[in-house]
Amino acid sequence: MVVDNKLKSIDFIQKTVILIFIVGKTIRKINLRPAKKMSPGEVVESERFLVSRLNKAEDTIVQVGSSSIGGNNFTMIAGPCAVESADQLQKTARWVKEQGAHLLRGGIFKARTSPYSFQGLGREGLEYLCQARTEFSLPIVTEALAPAQVHELLPRVDMLQVGSRNMQNFALLDEIGRVKKPVLLKRGMMATLDEFLAAAEYIYSKGNHQIVLCERGIRTFETAARNTLDLTAIPILKERTHLPVIVDPSHATGNRRWVIPLAKAALAVGAHGVMVEVHPAPDKAFSDGEQSLDFNEFKELMAELNKLLLVR
Amino acid sequence: MVVDNKLKSIDFIQKTVILIFIVGKTIRKINLRPAKKMSPGEVVESERFLVSRLNKAEDTIVQVGSSSIGGNNFTMIAGPCAVESADQLQKTARWVKEQGAHLLRGGIFKARTSPYSFQGLGREGLEYLCQARTEFSLPIVTEALAPAQVHELLPRVDMLQVGSRNMQNFALLDEIGRVKKPVLLKRGMMATLDEFLAAAEYIYSKGNHQIVLCERGIRTFETAARNTLDLTAIPILKERTHLPVIVDPSHATGNRRWVIPLAKAALAVGAHGVMVEVHPAPDKAFSDGEQSLDFNEFKELMAELNKLLLVR
Amino acid sequence: MVVDNKLKSIDFIQKTVILIFIVGKTIRKINLRPAKKMSPGEVVESERFLVSRLNKAEDTIVQVGSSSIGGNNFTMIAGPCAVESADQLQKTARWVKEQGAHLLRGGIFKARTSPYSFQGLGREGLEYLCQARTEFSLPIVTEALAPAQVHELLPRVDMLQVGSRNMQNFALLDEIGRVKKPVLLKRGMMATLDEFLAAAEYIYSKGNHQIVLCERGIRTFETAARNTLDLTAIPILKERTHLPVIVDPSHATGNRRWVIPLAKAALAVGAHGVMVEVHPAPDKAFSDGEQSLDFNEFKELMAELNKLLLVR
Amino acid sequence: MVVDNKLKSIDFIQKTVILIFIVGKTIRKINLRPAKKMSPGEVVESERFLVSRLNKAEDTIVQVGSSSIGGNNFTMIAGPCAVESADQLQKTARWVKEQGAHLLRGGIFKARTSPYSFQGLGREGLEYLCQARTEFSLPIVTEALAPAQVHELLPRVDMLQVGSRNMQNFALLDEIGRVKKPVLLKRGMMATLDEFLAAAEYIYSKGNHQIVLCERGIRTFETAARNTLDLTAIPILKERTHLPVIVDPSHATGNRRWVIPLAKAALAVGAHGVMVEVHPAPDKAFSDGEQSLDFNEFKELMAELNKLLLVR
Repeated sequence: MVVDNKLKSIDFIQKTVILIFIVGKTIRKINLRPAKKMSPGEVVESERFLVSRLNKAEDTIVQVGSSSIGGNNFTMIAGPCAVESADQLQKTARWVKEQGAHLLRGGIFKARTSPYSFQGLGREGLEYLCQARTEFSLPIVTEALAPAQVHELLPRVDMLQVGSRNMQNFALLDEIGRVKKPVLLKRGMMATLDEFLAAAEYIYSKGNHQIVLCERGIRTFETAARNTLDLTAIPILKERTHLPVIVDPSHATGNRRWVIPLAKAALAVGAHGVMVEVHPAPDKAFSDGEQSLDFNEFKELMAELNKLLLVR
Repeated sequence: MVVDNKLKSIDFIQKTVILIFIVGKTIRKINLRPAKKMSPGEVVESERFLVSRLNKAEDTIVQVGSSSIGGNNFTMIAGPCAVESADQLQKTARWVKEQGAHLLRGGIFKARTSPYSFQGLGREGLEYLCQARTEFSLPIVTEALAPAQVHELLPRVDMLQVGSRNMQNFALLDEIGRVKKPVLLKRGMMATLDEFLAAAEYIYSKGNHQIVLCERGIRTFETAARNTLDLTAIPILKERTHLPVIVDPSHATGNRRWVIPLAKAALAVGAHGVMVEVHPAPDKAFSDGEQSLDFNEFKELMAELNKLLLVR
Repeated sequence: MVVDNKLKSIDFIQKTVILIFIVGKTIRKINLRPAKKMSPGEVVESERFLVSRLNKAEDTIVQVGSSSIGGNNFTMIAGPCAVESADQLQKTARWVKEQGAHLLRGGIFKARTSPYSFQGLGREGLEYLCQARTEFSLPIVTEALAPAQVHELLPRVDMLQVGSRNMQNFALLDEIGRVKKPVLLKRGMMATLDEFLAAAEYIYSKGNHQIVLCERGIRTFETAARNTLDLTAIPILKERTHLPVIVDPSHATGNRRWVIPLAKAALAVGAHGVMVEVHPAPDKAFSDGEQSLDFNEFKELMAELNKLLLVR
Repeated sequence: MVVDNKLKSIDFIQKTVILIFIVGKTIRKINLRPAKKMSPGEVVESERFLVSRLNKAEDTIVQVGSSSIGGNNFTMIAGPCAVESADQLQKTARWVKEQGAHLLRGGIFKARTSPYSFQGLGREGLEYLCQARTEFSLPIVTEALAPAQVHELLPRVDMLQVGSRNMQNFALLDEIGRVKKPVLLKRGMMATLDEFLAAAEYIYSKGNHQIVLCERGIRTFETAARNTLDLTAIPILKERTHLPVIVDPSHATGNRRWVIPLAKAALAVGAHGVMVEVHPAPDKAFSDGEQSLDFNEFKELMAELNKLLLVR
């Protein structure tokens, strides 16, 4: 560089070195203070977090009923987007259990963009979930939208879900941090990985360490699929955190035709599991029918994943 | 639904509206290619909403204390990002009042990305806000993060704020929809205008009609500023809804040097007001100091806006 | 490199500048975490560029025919998206001249997404442009898509345009850098401000210093408008570079109803000018009719901008 | 829906049906005209394209030297980002050939954001490429930045590459469409799939049908990796076009640690091949060293991919 040639006087270089040293130390001090100097939402020093690999090197295994999520396990979570009826849920639960699913999912409180969309069956749906849980020995996971719902769901379900739109609902994260129950934390559709880890840290730092992260697609300029599934996030998250990371290809793609290839890619990229939506008659689903697999498609998915597991 | 009551006689105008509707849906079906089929959470038919101009042609005016927001009014909301002390708030309130601000803002419950960042003074901060309100006759607005906080703030503040990260916290929107208190609803940094209007509809449809929308920047690939202020949203929202729309250039830019030009642009583009952060000593602020105006800068801002108001 | 000639004596100011540089680089190294290490194509140290304010503090004024762009001037560029016929161009040129426009725009080589879209009139269109230039004493600006077109246009036009899709067409930038002709460089719809300045540097460093930058909207998740006009870019660019910066609200919004408010915002935010599309019959335009102003709308725009100029 | 109940008179329904029919036909007619009514860059009716599956149902196989790309083949393209010396290229070529790569890549004309970055060896680099081609019987692929370079490269290389920044350099696409040479077309980092297919159509419609598409990451708000690899694009593109589709995980991630998992995911999701950067000493690379695999990493990648190919 041309500038180098001009640095001839040795005292100047000395002064420079000393100055760099002082400035460097000052900057380090500034950076080590709590996040006051950072704009919220922009940069989080996630290396200092309890959820960081730097704090705990070995993989966290989250136990949900008889299933272990994380480490070398590959976990399959399946079920309808929303619980619609006892019959719909029972049929789906039986099928996914027979094909080898480990957990049953099903929404009863639905976060819907419009107030006029189907908002879920609520307590009635919870009953159906609990019946399926008993009948098919499948641990159940469902979403809580508010602190009050956490306590309603707590004694009945095996795992609580925090949805994408609530990833930075800090009052909800606080509440979930205070209970003893595994939690499935979905990435906000426009959250950076730093923010995702910071949301997990809210829960972890309150005492609840049973957290499973879930990549479910981010919002980008591309509209060919509903969202853009960010599979690069999987190896990055596995480097940065000891928590398990799974993938939801149903919400990401918004289209059942692309769920199987993306689920296979999720396994290949190193995810600890996959969560997919399954419905006995997707065309009649109350919500997200376009992205729900029918029974044959789910069977095919399991066969494809089992082939890949052979060579993992 | 309110709409029902209005559909009592099928006169010619109503037939036309229904026809347009059906034809519109048909056209959309013709145009829809399978790969582009939208999922229910992505597109909201906001034309049918109560907040739509099609439902109410004239501008809604939201009355907050002695201030009217909307219509031909241009409202100035100013104050610190977070209430930090009685002294800090009093000094700021006095200054912004003297310069002509209409409302005082100040966060006491802060939504912070990291659990280790300053989380706000809580009730102590509320006392300071109420003192400033009395001393300077300034209506106050502050953010509620959870349903429980809504009821704590309700008897003390003039306007509730829903923050960007909570725009789709549906339990919070529901609660705010059930109270009688003006609300400042900030656009989610990841929300489309359709989703923004749907969030407003959650509140409006529950009975609370005193809603002011606030554009505060969206998240894009560009990192030169904290977010990308979407001023195109102002004329679009004014077409689609009868609710007032203001702009927050402080959070959008994240840098005080760009707040004044963007506030001027907000006025020129047709916003009903501006909300800015002001701090007696921005370099010492507990949060968002980089984007807070100091007192001289706020004075300059008011002078610049007043010049533009002359020719509006 | 021009910088060399200036580094002849190492006086105190220069030492300081060099020191800031070295310290800056050191700080950046300290802050860099491995996972965030930037690749060379992503971040450009635009402070060292010739187009940087650090290299030249005073505003560059670009002279195009009788018009001066930059400094305290506010320049109005108007005309059809594409030249379609002698009659269409003549009518438009007369009208925009009468209303006070300074330059006439009109595409003859069109960059169209689909090979089956109207690709422009080519040389025939150039004749019409030159006729209008003579008849109405309006300097003309039109886009060159390839190095060969640069030389075809050079003797006939007053200003060359580099379109959004070609902002990183480096062979084209090189060629334009070697000629003596003012150039209007449009920001790529996917380009960061650093990349935008680097594209300008390609031209500037080859010897052509007559560059006007043009913000025209970036691509984001929001689809309510065609693109998201990034007005925050204006004060940022004015800080970082001495080159003039104008705004194109027509391409950004894609809708004529939003062009006037956004043009006003561009003036208020500090842009050195505005470029808009005008067509005698927008509904019949061969391209971009939705975003072209008709004659009355353009007259209204000029009246609105002139009011704002009174208080600038 | 409430509206339904009000549709009581049968003549009204009849009229509606007729009207829908007429309006529908009109709309179809409007849509079938050339893209005048479409905003450029926003929507392309890619179903009518020659590259569409609707035009040609069976997979296109592109023959490059002895390698067949497309159909059931999985093609491995490897080599340095930039050709730096005879020694660097020879070592790399020997290694990737021994490990089973099918094609050798290496840039000699580099598209760099800054004019001061290494711009490639040019003709000297071409000599080294040709030597490696002869010595190791590897077909070679390299990028052309401008129409003139197409003709310089044409007699010497086996495949031409169009880089991400030039995906909408229409003059370049035109030129490549007129020659008989396989082309590797990289997706623009902010191009929709519709625009990607339209760029391919520019080449295809001019007569050159030997096109391989390459997904290489899109630009989003997430900065943890250089770009966001859009693997959902693979099944979508395979539905929409008969052209082969490969994946470049090196440019997408910008970090060699994530290249192997993403390459595996690309195979699992159904890509027809992968292109990766390999360098004998990545830390000393002139460009993109962070994302280049070293020799051991490339060997590991091939082993991992070969395991997956067993169960495909």
